[in-house]
Amino acid sequence: MTRGITAPKGFQAAGFYSGVKRKRKDLSMMISQSPMSWAALFTTNVVKAAPVLWGESLLKAGKPLQALVINSGNANACTGEQGDLDLQKMVEQTAMVLSIPETSVLIASTGVIGVPLPIEKILSGIPQAANLLDSSQEADDAVAEGIVTTDTFIKQASITIEVQGVEVTLGGMAKGSGMIHPNMATMLAFVTTDAKVDTGLLQELLKEASDESYHMISVDGDTSTNDTVAVFANGESGVEITKESDGYLAFKAAFFQIHQSLAIAIVSDGEGAGKLIEVKLKGAATKEAAKRMARSIVSSSLVKTAFFGEDANWGRILCAMGYSGADFNPKEVGIQIQSEQGLIDLMKRGVPIVFDEDLAAKILSEDKLQVLVTIQDGKESATAWGCDLSYEYVKINGEYRT
Amino acid sequence: MTRGITAPKGFQAAGFYSGVKRKRKDLSMMISQSPMSWAALFTTNVVKAAPVLWGESLLKAGKPLQALVINSGNANACTGEQGDLDLQKMVEQTAMVLSIPETSVLIASTGVIGVPLPIEKILSGIPQAANLLDSSQEADDAVAEGIVTTDTFIKQASITIEVQGVEVTLGGMAKGSGMIHPNMATMLAFVTTDAKVDTGLLQELLKEASDESYHMISVDGDTSTNDTVAVFANGESGVEITKESDGYLAFKAAFFQIHQSLAIAIVSDGEGAGKLIEVKLKGAATKEAAKRMARSIVSSSLVKTAFFGEDANWGRILCAMGYSGADFNPKEVGIQIQSEQGLIDLMKRGVPIVFDEDLAAKILSEDKLQVLVTIQDGKESATAWGCDLSYEYVKINGEYRT
Repeated sequence: MTRGITAPKGFQAAGFYSGVKRKRKDLSMMISQSPMSWAALFTTNVVKAAPVLWGESLLKAGKPLQALVINSGNANACTGEQGDLDLQKMVEQTAMVLSIPETSVLIASTGVIGVPLPIEKILSGIPQAANLLDSSQEADDAVAEGIVTTDTFIKQASITIEVQGVEVTLGGMAKGSGMIHPNMATMLAFVTTDAKVDTGLLQELLKEASDESYHMISVDGDTSTNDTVAVFANGESGVEITKESDGYLAFKAAFFQIHQSLAIAIVSDGEGAGKLIEVKLKGAATKEAAKRMARSIVSSSLVKTAFFGEDANWGRILCAMGYSGADFNPKEVGIQIQSEQGLIDLMKRGVPIVFDEDLAAKILSEDKLQVLVTIQDGKESATAWGCDLSYEYVKINGEYRT
Repeated sequence: MTRGITAPKGFQAAGFYSGVKRKRKDLSMMISQSPMSWAALFTTNVVKAAPVLWGESLLKAGKPLQALVINSGNANACTGEQGDLDLQKMVEQTAMVLSIPETSVLIASTGVIGVPLPIEKILSGIPQAANLLDSSQEADDAVAEGIVTTDTFIKQASITIEVQGVEVTLGGMAKGSGMIHPNMATMLAFVTTDAKVDTGLLQELLKEASDESYHMISVDGDTSTNDTVAVFANGESGVEITKESDGYLAFKAAFFQIHQSLAIAIVSDGEGAGKLIEVKLKGAATKEAAKRMARSIVSSSLVKTAFFGEDANWGRILCAMGYSGADFNPKEVGIQIQSEQGLIDLMKRGVPIVFDEDLAAKILSEDKLQVLVTIQDGKESATAWGCDLSYEYVKINGEYRT
């Protein structure tokens, strides 16, 4: 089993059913035994949910945190002044129950928007969740379950490295499904570590890691009102990480890896998704161009439906590169598709080549596919992840609110 | 019946079945009895089909045209040098059959990409299409039928106005379906007129009209390799239109109207579309902001699936405005939905209001819907058109190539 956010020392967590959702756990809590330095990225949407505005104000204040509370089933977005009041009640209740300052409580919400929070259920759930706080596989699973909505599986990751002869652990959990797209789309991801890392370095690492993970995935192109990615470091391992410290590179690699694992888990579980599509693009003139083209491919509805139809449609791939906004020489494009069943060349030097349709069908029948694109404009590369677009996606989203 | 491109004086057209498609007409031809001034907009995709490159070179040369040939079923895109040679053969054959200069022949192609043109079928079809050239309702229908691919109906429009006591007519046809999005996505549209209009003015009017029509529609966000919108003026009415002439405003209004009719017909026939969604946004600080928000709403997969599900999901509408890239005050947003069944308020001053679900269901059951969005940032407005996203879209595009 994969451990999650209580894998690092000094973290406890719980997931509880408060009655907001129909059946599953809908209230998650995480605390640290000592104050945590932290960093976060919030949605870029102009319309921000109440907990996002609260989180932004805490981030600006720059003080340590001690607890995180997440409710699912209701996003507390577009809820006007009532939403702000309800958010404040959640903060107060958590601070009181855990005997910590209000400004040390980060809140996240996910679910339907525009409907007032069933605040009484949440307020009475908070002390009950606090009673369940624990450090264990079960606690990891429970807290990760409490944050999901239409997800079909819970998303966790953990890594332990040795720094200066001491174990340092990172743990994470995420919530994804629909609306996943560059710039934090209805996505929650939280990573804990028992290393000691200052806020400035955490923020820098989070930005860099997000650029190579959450910002390179796409489910349906929409960006939500509630997206939050946050990292917490409580120092309980006794190991401090700075840019100068011995273990810095190992820590940075683990940090990137954990965010990438969570991002891939999110996109694998895109609404209605049956296939994970990894696009690796090489030979771009600039990093930005490489990213644009790779993201444009995984974001194209036509590419996504082609993969759903198990169709080796290199034309839609090339076309999506063409309207990405990045310039490139279309006469030097190579496209291959690969899975466990083998590899097939679809295009060389900008011209499609005749391929073995039977082999293509076999390769495309797999649920993990790689698209390898090469151009000849330079040395930059990028990787993006997406999923297919299925009947199920339409079904889920055509019937979500009702 | 609606007339099409041979409604104006001095134009003849034909549609012919040359055997490229399975059953339907696949080769269209239009000629003018006198040379035509013309203007065009081509795809912004980096990957351009052979006929687009030919069209761009003709436009640059700035000479009058005499004929237009369009084949459907094969886009002659990503076909390398063979594609350029095949395009050249189409031009030569048309010029020879009609006894006109090669540089007066515009070509457009639409259909699968990356497969060499079945050039022999097209070359033997050209003289046969030429034999069918005529000015009539039947000719209009035939030429419009010859350009469609997955379209479920042919798209035509015509308008006659009186200028200086003389009738001036405009006629048009278009091909749409999948991949319709701002910046000319797999879309062909051709408008003829018997007014005399110089190239400079035609190009200016076409750009302006496109900004209010083709650039404000979205089916699935992809932009193709072959998009072409062109207008042709042969002067056969004897009336000249300049910015100073009496009939200028009437002509301009008719010109805009015909492009808007074609654009709306295209989006109404988006692949798998069951509903036409018109978004009218008012009160933006700038025209650009108004357009961005309106387009973002009609382009959102989540908004589109909500309309498919007949769900009054104001939240997804607001969310799409929020990530459009335009800034606005979310606390002053009003959203209404309207159809022939009535009008319903969904949001006022940024807060959702309780609405009659039965009335909403009735309104949303219609196949033409209006979304009325008001903000309070300024005086600019914009209108965009889109369609719902259905199971059928996934089916069509999951199985297109095979």
